[in-house]
Amino acid sequence: MKQLQVLLVAGTHGNEINGIWLFDEWKKSSFLINTHGIKTFKVIGNPEAKKAGKRYIHHDLNRSFKEESFIKINPLNCERTRASELVNLYGEAGENPCQIALDFHTTTASMGSCIVVYGRRDADLALASLIQNQLGLPVYLHESDQKQTGFLVESWPCGLVVEIGPIGQGLLNSRIISQTKLILETLMEQIHEVKNLNLFFPNKLIIHRHIKSIDFPRDEEGNIDGYVHSLRQSKDWQELKKNDELFCKLNGEIIRFEEDEPYIPVFINEAAYVEKNIAMSFTKRELWNFKKEWKQALIDLIHQK
Amino acid sequence: MKQLQVLLVAGTHGNEINGIWLFDEWKKSSFLINTHGIKTFKVIGNPEAKKAGKRYIHHDLNRSFKEESFIKINPLNCERTRASELVNLYGEAGENPCQIALDFHTTTASMGSCIVVYGRRDADLALASLIQNQLGLPVYLHESDQKQTGFLVESWPCGLVVEIGPIGQGLLNSRIISQTKLILETLMEQIHEVKNLNLFFPNKLIIHRHIKSIDFPRDEEGNIDGYVHSLRQSKDWQELKKNDELFCKLNGEIIRFEEDEPYIPVFINEAAYVEKNIAMSFTKRELWNFKKEWKQALIDLIHQK
Repeated sequence: MKQLQVLLVAGTHGNEINGIWLFDEWKKSSFLINTHGIKTFKVIGNPEAKKAGKRYIHHDLNRSFKEESFIKINPLNCERTRASELVNLYGEAGENPCQIALDFHTTTASMGSCIVVYGRRDADLALASLIQNQLGLPVYLHESDQKQTGFLVESWPCGLVVEIGPIGQGLLNSRIISQTKLILETLMEQIHEVKNLNLFFPNKLIIHRHIKSIDFPRDEEGNIDGYVHSLRQSKDWQELKKNDELFCKLNGEIIRFEEDEPYIPVFINEAAYVEKNIAMSFTKRELWNFKKEWKQALIDLIHQK
Repeated sequence: MKQLQVLLVAGTHGNEINGIWLFDEWKKSSFLINTHGIKTFKVIGNPEAKKAGKRYIHHDLNRSFKEESFIKINPLNCERTRASELVNLYGEAGENPCQIALDFHTTTASMGSCIVVYGRRDADLALASLIQNQLGLPVYLHESDQKQTGFLVESWPCGLVVEIGPIGQGLLNSRIISQTKLILETLMEQIHEVKNLNLFFPNKLIIHRHIKSIDFPRDEEGNIDGYVHSLRQSKDWQELKKNDELFCKLNGEIIRFEEDEPYIPVFINEAAYVEKNIAMSFTKRELWNFKKEWKQALIDLIHQK
């Protein structure tokens, strides 16, 4: 059996710096974080953007991991180049092949901590289940979004995003750092347990399945002319029912939620999503039965069968 | 007597947009905001930066109002040019001379609402006293800071900054908009009362006098290697006593407040101040007797004697 290697990424967005702090702390005092002897590689996702104090230089790095991007290095696109580089260094067929990628993010939305999975890969769902079972975190299943693709973790056989908020861009915050550390350690501990076949998977997984994102209200010229209603602001994960308030418009009109079935909003008023025309995303909360295939996929991956 | 004219500025920093929203709302429905018949000019301070979604293009506009800047237009400095333009348009000797400037800002720090005065000008202190008497807001006296000069309101005979937080950069927030509106209306109402000589000034003014700003801890290479301690985060306006925790360093060390006299911190972890090497500012809370000269200066100004 080859040695299991795990890629840890922080600063995929250059202005989300709390995970980077944790890596620096860890470098200084290796005892601070317990990885249970599993080999890890800690990298800053987008060091150029970090230096510039920006989310990205040319394109969002976490939308740059598309198959076609890896064909050639493009000197005019810092992020496509970095995506290729990371895959060449730590991808499954790279210099230091990693089987699992964990990508640490922050949000300006009042989401607390959550795990994001991209699509329904068995090993991802198994690992997310283990974390939900340990920490009770919501799991956000991001799928069916044609406008947003090419996420970093998708380039690894198994990968999760950890998303923590609220925190302003470019700021360090003691609470966010502690929460990041807790989730990182829990992830490593759970991977270790699977490695030792000391398994305890839950029967159910609560999934917040992405349905769609909605834009802010806009005027005829395309300018935003409505803000998130006070009853919706900071109410991530709280169920929306028909006629609930969504936005206040410039003309005083209130825009309400008009769907018949309840949705759960997330990423409400996330600063980085204004440019993506996203005021919030809607999810459906679903209770899924844990599947044996998920468990087997994660075991096979970690044991590199 | 010439007509009193008041300059209202929002978006002096292009990513502080809640005041701009209020102006747009007001344009649409003029009854929404009561200015008591006083002539106002509403301007976006830095429209270029607003378009770019940034605090500024070349330099902070609210540090660009220096006498020497007004000598000539500099096409390579968008903000110096804009500062001259605003003074030419609305300055005391401008096309539409305004006697009072009110400048609406937001902060990512948990400051709530406050009034900022730059230096100890009589009319500013009188107007700030009226607002404190109505709304109980803290008044932050910014002075003795050689590194920060050239503030917009200093170019008008009387001028206050309204600062409201916490809110992420570039975001609209219903609470911030409501608070901005309340303070704007209260300011106009109080100016109106002075105009009508219907005066009620308090006997005392509580001032938070700026003492100094402190930087984040840094390593030998100048990189930030400490974050605001969890006991200090979001504790703006709360008194610091000797040995209180200020920062956590990368090496685990806690940096404490070591002065003998108590200070009151403000702008704790303000995102825009990281580039200014400011982790927070220290003030002293002082109770000042209201002075007759302040009142007279404001009356004279508003009545244009």
